[in-house]
Amino acid sequence: MRAVDDAVRLLVQTGKARVRATPCEMVSVHQALGLVLAEDVSSPVDVPPRDNSAMDGYAYRHADAERAGFTVPVSARIAAGQAPGALASGSAARIFTGAEIPAGADTVAMQEDCRLEDGHVVIAAAVTPGANIRPQGQDVRRGDVILHAGRRLRPQELGLLASVGRAEVSVHRPLRVAVFSTGDELVEPGRPLAPGQIYNSNRATLAGLLAAWGMVMIDCGICPDRPERVVALLERAARDADVVITSGGVSVGEEDHVKGAVERLGSLDLWKIAIKPGKPLAFGEVLGTPFMGLPGNPASVFVTALMLLRPFLFSLAGADDVSPMALAARATFSRKAGKREEYLRVRRRGDAVEIFANQSSGMLSSACWGDGLVRQRAGQAIAEDDLVEFLPYSAFFTPL
Amino acid sequence: MRAVDDAVRLLVQTGKARVRATPCEMVSVHQALGLVLAEDVSSPVDVPPRDNSAMDGYAYRHADAERAGFTVPVSARIAAGQAPGALASGSAARIFTGAEIPAGADTVAMQEDCRLEDGHVVIAAAVTPGANIRPQGQDVRRGDVILHAGRRLRPQELGLLASVGRAEVSVHRPLRVAVFSTGDELVEPGRPLAPGQIYNSNRATLAGLLAAWGMVMIDCGICPDRPERVVALLERAARDADVVITSGGVSVGEEDHVKGAVERLGSLDLWKIAIKPGKPLAFGEVLGTPFMGLPGNPASVFVTALMLLRPFLFSLAGADDVSPMALAARATFSRKAGKREEYLRVRRRGDAVEIFANQSSGMLSSACWGDGLVRQRAGQAIAEDDLVEFLPYSAFFTPL
Repeated sequence: MRAVDDAVRLLVQTGKARVRATPCEMVSVHQALGLVLAEDVSSPVDVPPRDNSAMDGYAYRHADAERAGFTVPVSARIAAGQAPGALASGSAARIFTGAEIPAGADTVAMQEDCRLEDGHVVIAAAVTPGANIRPQGQDVRRGDVILHAGRRLRPQELGLLASVGRAEVSVHRPLRVAVFSTGDELVEPGRPLAPGQIYNSNRATLAGLLAAWGMVMIDCGICPDRPERVVALLERAARDADVVITSGGVSVGEEDHVKGAVERLGSLDLWKIAIKPGKPLAFGEVLGTPFMGLPGNPASVFVTALMLLRPFLFSLAGADDVSPMALAARATFSRKAGKREEYLRVRRRGDAVEIFANQSSGMLSSACWGDGLVRQRAGQAIAEDDLVEFLPYSAFFTPL
Repeated sequence: MRAVDDAVRLLVQTGKARVRATPCEMVSVHQALGLVLAEDVSSPVDVPPRDNSAMDGYAYRHADAERAGFTVPVSARIAAGQAPGALASGSAARIFTGAEIPAGADTVAMQEDCRLEDGHVVIAAAVTPGANIRPQGQDVRRGDVILHAGRRLRPQELGLLASVGRAEVSVHRPLRVAVFSTGDELVEPGRPLAPGQIYNSNRATLAGLLAAWGMVMIDCGICPDRPERVVALLERAARDADVVITSGGVSVGEEDHVKGAVERLGSLDLWKIAIKPGKPLAFGEVLGTPFMGLPGNPASVFVTALMLLRPFLFSLAGADDVSPMALAARATFSRKAGKREEYLRVRRRGDAVEIFANQSSGMLSSACWGDGLVRQRAGQAIAEDDLVEFLPYSAFFTPL
């Protein structure tokens, strides 16, 4: 059996090697949430571009004001957005938050520390020289690379790009992922269920994940059981999509038609991965397009999509960091050691995690009940109150 | 000053009181990621609908096979999706993963534990009665409420809805949020910067957050400094949107035109909140539509949007749980106690968090550098190696 970490390393390596194949495009910064930057962005400006006032108050040169006993005439008024002239020597300027500090001033007294008397401002002597000024270039310096290629864009990165004047950026085109479901027992939701049938839930889970990841799902529906139809569908998917994925069927053999079709059009490896739920994973290519076959059980699909599919798709999409976020939490349960790395569906309560009673791979409700996974390493026994690795779902769903 | 928790409680209360005003709509489950459920969903079916096989192998009645010395004739073949007839007494059926267990069988031996001899299957005696069967209703029982109204839909909930046959669900219509920027110093990215001006970054940060939250931004641009224009813009925004928000300007007074306009069209409270960065927050309504005025500094906008705007918008959108996820992490820094609750921009490294050197409210780069906030409570000093509350950004960005 292959260790999870080894499998991820191999998947990421394969993904990274293919990144250059995905084309780039310019998009509006406002539309770029979750996309992967395809350029190093350097700033053409200092942010802020000039020293500015952090407060509403009065701007003055501290040494001048000190000499005048901190009572000086008000010679100007500077609102935000104005380009101020130089400050008359020995005077102060009424100034507002965000407004540029005039040449000749080096300190701002906030208005609560001042009073106006007869055209003069009386400034509390305690205001320290240099106070309440945001220096030019404090946030970003002109020429700095503010974000590197490979960065997934979160809301704050959109703000940072805007702050240096960027309205558009070059990003990797969102990945197009073709999704097949396999299994003659599957029926799409909304239709009646005949004996022997179950509803197809994996397509909806995968649709949600791909949407959360900013990717485009090409829905190929439920794979029919006629080999020539499967080949035709796979051919079309491989031509239209950047990746082809299936859930179910690939490890089964006798009742499987996808495996043969993939092998006819490309190549396929069947991996046994030391992961629970999960284990069988098919990985290969169809007409040069990467192919991944996930297991069929709903909780297995969910866990392997987070732990194996996600790092593969993200590296293929050009992202640099694909590791999940793991934090320490206290277990309220005990559990024997196993041979495979197990991903337990848990619920967080403060700094502790409770476990869902039934960890069967068929139980999708186990994943809905809680808000994350606990990674139980192979050979690791968990005792009550042990600190364990908690992987919050939210960290899997966003541009981290 | 108002404590952060008190402010949030008041905002959530106001939001919840207005939920019924947002209309509901039916959407496809595949399109429902991040939306808030507006109905209790109960299941019309058992999942799985019948006992089925967890493995490829042979199905039989354990007592019969034992009596026959675990060598029994193979009388049937049951693939997934077929409705099997009853099993002939004293025989076994070849069966595949996901296929329905025939009446008369109570155990599945996986194929690795069997060998075929002359039309008979020889079953390892060690297979326990009842093995490898997924019982009917294991995941969901018919009539169970699987998800309650108020639940934000994550990928796994989409899967669960599909698993009980739901193709569409009733959700709250995504919130429409009108966003104004204020400040005469602001220029939109992509244009040249004149002296005294800075680029408007808050709009992009807010656009990203609203997109991450599944909400619709109505972009009202930069507020002009003519009172009658502001009133007209606010009127239109209040009519078209479910909420109106601004960044900057509202606390300033002399140079502010939004405050007067809001007061003319509705009402406005100025709150001083014990939060850093942040502090001033305007909260009120315009022609009956809720209004929130965020601070103007980019890091203040980011932090107050996560801590104050998010719980308000989420409760207004009908969500039941709006609290952020806080986990324990070890501080690699020390910090004096302060009077306000401070949200430090940090970066996680394993179980430890490092702090960004400059925590100024003007530094948006502080939020891009890391992956979460540390909440430093008012009066709490932090020493190196203390366990502190870490709030990962990702938990703020997703349907938690």
